Amino acid sequence: MQVEIEARLNYAFENETQILLALQASQSRDQEIITESLVFEPSANYQTDKNLEGDRKLRAVVSGPTTITYRAVIENHLRPLLPAEGRRNLWAELPDYTFPFLLPSRFCPSDRFMRFTQREFANSPDGVARVVEILDWIYDHIDYVHGVSDAQTTALATFVDRAGVCRDFTHLAISLCRAIGVPARAVSAYALELQPPDFHAILEVYLENAWWLVDPTRLASVGGLVRIGSGRDASDIAFMTTDKPCQMIEQAISVSRFSKQGSRITSP
Amino acid sequence: MQVEIEARLNYAFENETQILLALQASQSRDQEIITESLVFEPSANYQTDKNLEGDRKLRAVVSGPTTITYRAVIENHLRPLLPAEGRRNLWAELPDYTFPFLLPSRFCPSDRFMRFTQREFANSPDGVARVVEILDWIYDHIDYVHGVSDAQTTALATFVDRAGVCRDFTHLAISLCRAIGVPARAVSAYALELQPPDFHAILEVYLENAWWLVDPTRLASVGGLVRIGSGRDASDIAFMTTDKPCQMIEQAISVSRFSKQGSRITSP
Amino acid sequence: MQVEIEARLNYAFENETQILLALQASQSRDQEIITESLVFEPSANYQTDKNLEGDRKLRAVVSGPTTITYRAVIENHLRPLLPAEGRRNLWAELPDYTFPFLLPSRFCPSDRFMRFTQREFANSPDGVARVVEILDWIYDHIDYVHGVSDAQTTALATFVDRAGVCRDFTHLAISLCRAIGVPARAVSAYALELQPPDFHAILEVYLENAWWLVDPTRLASVGGLVRIGSGRDASDIAFMTTDKPCQMIEQAISVSRFSKQGSRITSP
Amino acid sequence: MQVEIEARLNYAFENETQILLALQASQSRDQEIITESLVFEPSANYQTDKNLEGDRKLRAVVSGPTTITYRAVIENHLRPLLPAEGRRNLWAELPDYTFPFLLPSRFCPSDRFMRFTQREFANSPDGVARVVEILDWIYDHIDYVHGVSDAQTTALATFVDRAGVCRDFTHLAISLCRAIGVPARAVSAYALELQPPDFHAILEVYLENAWWLVDPTRLASVGGLVRIGSGRDASDIAFMTTDKPCQMIEQAISVSRFSKQGSRITSP
Repeated sequence: MQVEIEARLNYAFENETQILLALQASQSRDQEIITESLVFEPSANYQTDKNLEGDRKLRAVVSGPTTITYRAVIENHLRPLLPAEGRRNLWAELPDYTFPFLLPSRFCPSDRFMRFTQREFANSPDGVARVVEILDWIYDHIDYVHGVSDAQTTALATFVDRAGVCRDFTHLAISLCRAIGVPARAVSAYALELQPPDFHAILEVYLENAWWLVDPTRLASVGGLVRIGSGRDASDIAFMTTDKPCQMIEQAISVSRFSKQGSRITSP
Repeated sequence: MQVEIEARLNYAFENETQILLALQASQSRDQEIITESLVFEPSANYQTDKNLEGDRKLRAVVSGPTTITYRAVIENHLRPLLPAEGRRNLWAELPDYTFPFLLPSRFCPSDRFMRFTQREFANSPDGVARVVEILDWIYDHIDYVHGVSDAQTTALATFVDRAGVCRDFTHLAISLCRAIGVPARAVSAYALELQPPDFHAILEVYLENAWWLVDPTRLASVGGLVRIGSGRDASDIAFMTTDKPCQMIEQAISVSRFSKQGSRITSP
Repeated sequence: MQVEIEARLNYAFENETQILLALQASQSRDQEIITESLVFEPSANYQTDKNLEGDRKLRAVVSGPTTITYRAVIENHLRPLLPAEGRRNLWAELPDYTFPFLLPSRFCPSDRFMRFTQREFANSPDGVARVVEILDWIYDHIDYVHGVSDAQTTALATFVDRAGVCRDFTHLAISLCRAIGVPARAVSAYALELQPPDFHAILEVYLENAWWLVDPTRLASVGGLVRIGSGRDASDIAFMTTDKPCQMIEQAISVSRFSKQGSRITSP
Repeated sequence: MQVEIEARLNYAFENETQILLALQASQSRDQEIITESLVFEPSANYQTDKNLEGDRKLRAVVSGPTTITYRAVIENHLRPLLPAEGRRNLWAELPDYTFPFLLPSRFCPSDRFMRFTQREFANSPDGVARVVEILDWIYDHIDYVHGVSDAQTTALATFVDRAGVCRDFTHLAISLCRAIGVPARAVSAYALELQPPDFHAILEVYLENAWWLVDPTRLASVGGLVRIGSGRDASDIAFMTTDKPCQMIEQAISVSRFSKQGSRITSP
């Protein structure tokens, strides 16, 4: 499946604002970049960092009203879904780079959920089954609602409030998975069916020697996701980080299936 | 039943420390003070405030190492237990002094639990039945454990951590009751069966035009409680409040059944 | 000075929503109600509670879209300003009803500020001078900014964030005053010069055997305030408390000097 | 200077507890390991991960009462001190691996301190001078006190409470440095003069194209530190992480100057 993306960010920046952008589709193995362009108006110099998994971040210095437009067509390879069963890796089996994703982080204080996960999920088989039970629990107990949470909201608050948006679902799922000893990390993505279109936050869990993408909100299918980057939680995967306050003037994301005739088929 | 109490507080105070003590058994209608004495060593002047419900607070100024000893024999009248059924009072029916006990307070942010109580308890009949369901839920989901909580712990933390002591059980029960529209307040007491003996925190709920004492930890029977005072949460019912830091040297509480022969029958 | 008030609240309520309103000017000794009216559209039955200080709360049951309009003309007596000097009352001298205002509360965790106030304000004379220094410190260190805080924000957050609105200034001032042993309480009011007109939150400190009104934001003069009610913090002085979620459709407050000719003189 | 270390950890573990240990001195360029040994009693299999900077973590599975003893003699090379002046690196100049240390983390929510650092430190020259001013501010405003903080304490709480231990000083220093745009990370170490001897937490700031070690508590000299590892905050640099609760039986750290005669010269 080919996916067409357009992200347009129009912001008013203070003079000489340093920015870090995570806007570009990852050059990871499960997706291929057919075409892409990134344009600053007015123009700006930038440099790009790419990590071992193909995730890219871009640094630039901008001043005043600026529009940043990213356009891409991505070929999504068939992305394997979380298997029906499988076991949790022991620490001795984990690649060392997965360890940070076992530890509590700012929005995912997993150590606080040890007793809850023990009480609630100890009866299901350790591994995929227990992760699936956690995802079901979240889907059954948390309402998808705007306005309850904000950029400071942690998984603790979401667990109490029983409501939130994709970021909050993801943080709670990460916290509960780490609490049962499964590495879990936050992933930012463009998502095909998301209404209204926006940046999407989902997670990956590490089971059976591999990372598996899951969407705890069930708002988007894994096949239609275009990965941008990953990290411990929302702190790491912000689409834009700046060293000075800035103001959004307008922001528009569109994600659609790409047909060869060049006509866009918007998701229903 | 007659209950004999001895509370001995030995503290090192800074010079001219102002203290507020809530140590004395309440002169409320459900209990009668047979004998009592309160002794400061070295001696100190104090004054006593009594509120409309018979709860007493005592103000004094102390300096240096001081021992405060309260001894009392209390006749506990038969205290009615929460009835098997009954309805929640509408706001129009509540005495106005109960309103603060409907509102969120420092350790009982009841507004944060609205969605949870709606989801979890909406199916049981409004009134006594729903309060009983809340108390059962707490008993089933929270472990009585020392060391998880401290003096800053709110009901939010206890709800996540799933563990705490009497103070935490009480704060969570108050929060959930207020969230379903039932006035609830914290009560400090001496308790007959408590092991080890200590000040106990329980709560009262207002239903069917009356306050009813309940112990969410189920560690003490309502009949063996000697009430000291009540308030919004632990902030209000501390046994001692001081205007300067102080240090506990020793503190000992003993509560026992009183027999006429003068011999103390310690609770088993 | 005569002040004319109009508060119009247009809300969509769920069926049979119980509400508690603190909209009416207090019948306190420092202000006199010349005329007033309170109208529900559609009409609703209500009952009014008045406390010893003349503050009124009103209980009603409403359903669907409802407009509540309060209109009043108030004669403000000359309200004495915080005197140039004066001492802090010892606990032995305080009326017992002031004690709750010495204790930490939900949004005003004054116990957490003991070390800061000791370090920062210990050198100024205890009493009025130290309170004035606290008010100056707040004015110098906190920015009046919308959007940093919300309804959950405590004085701890405001102290870190260094920004907030009237409610936050008031919570921080209350916290710091209680931390130095001065009773302090939150007061809701209509305010003459406030731009844009809205409910205002200020505080009262108890010094020299009396309560004194102060506005830590310095946005309104004490003489032009019309008191509604008081409490431990924002939890107690909300203009409306409901037992079910509701939605604001429109809300408009106007406060102006009243001239005998009947023409309104809007504050410049 | 040669430093001799002995760390003995005696813990009771549940059956088959997975542990992650960060006990060994780093094989970083500024220190050289002369001799070392790590012994498990009873014996256990373990594997070691080493990152690019030479920091090591060790994974093992243990059961029941276990003593882990680490002994080492380290040659500390002359470690350069934070220079008297120097400038902050622009984002364009930073190695990409430093970026996570610019972002807020669990115990170091640096985004919350932007306004404070702007107000308090904006007048000093950007770079080393501003970092020094931050370190001075912390030393002047925070008391080194046990018992105020615990393992959940964030830099927000320490900033309010004005007290804490090495971990809290480090978190606050990291937060304030990140808030002014300087990468900062937590470092765990053995420290020569620390009384009583314990694991020490300090930080590194990135300025003038290099990391510089600083101790915001001023309890240990930089020259006598033996680095173990580094990370975003205390979450990353715990000396032991376990997947199940465990109980400390005894723990003893000793750090001393090593003399060739083999006699230990304990720090005064």
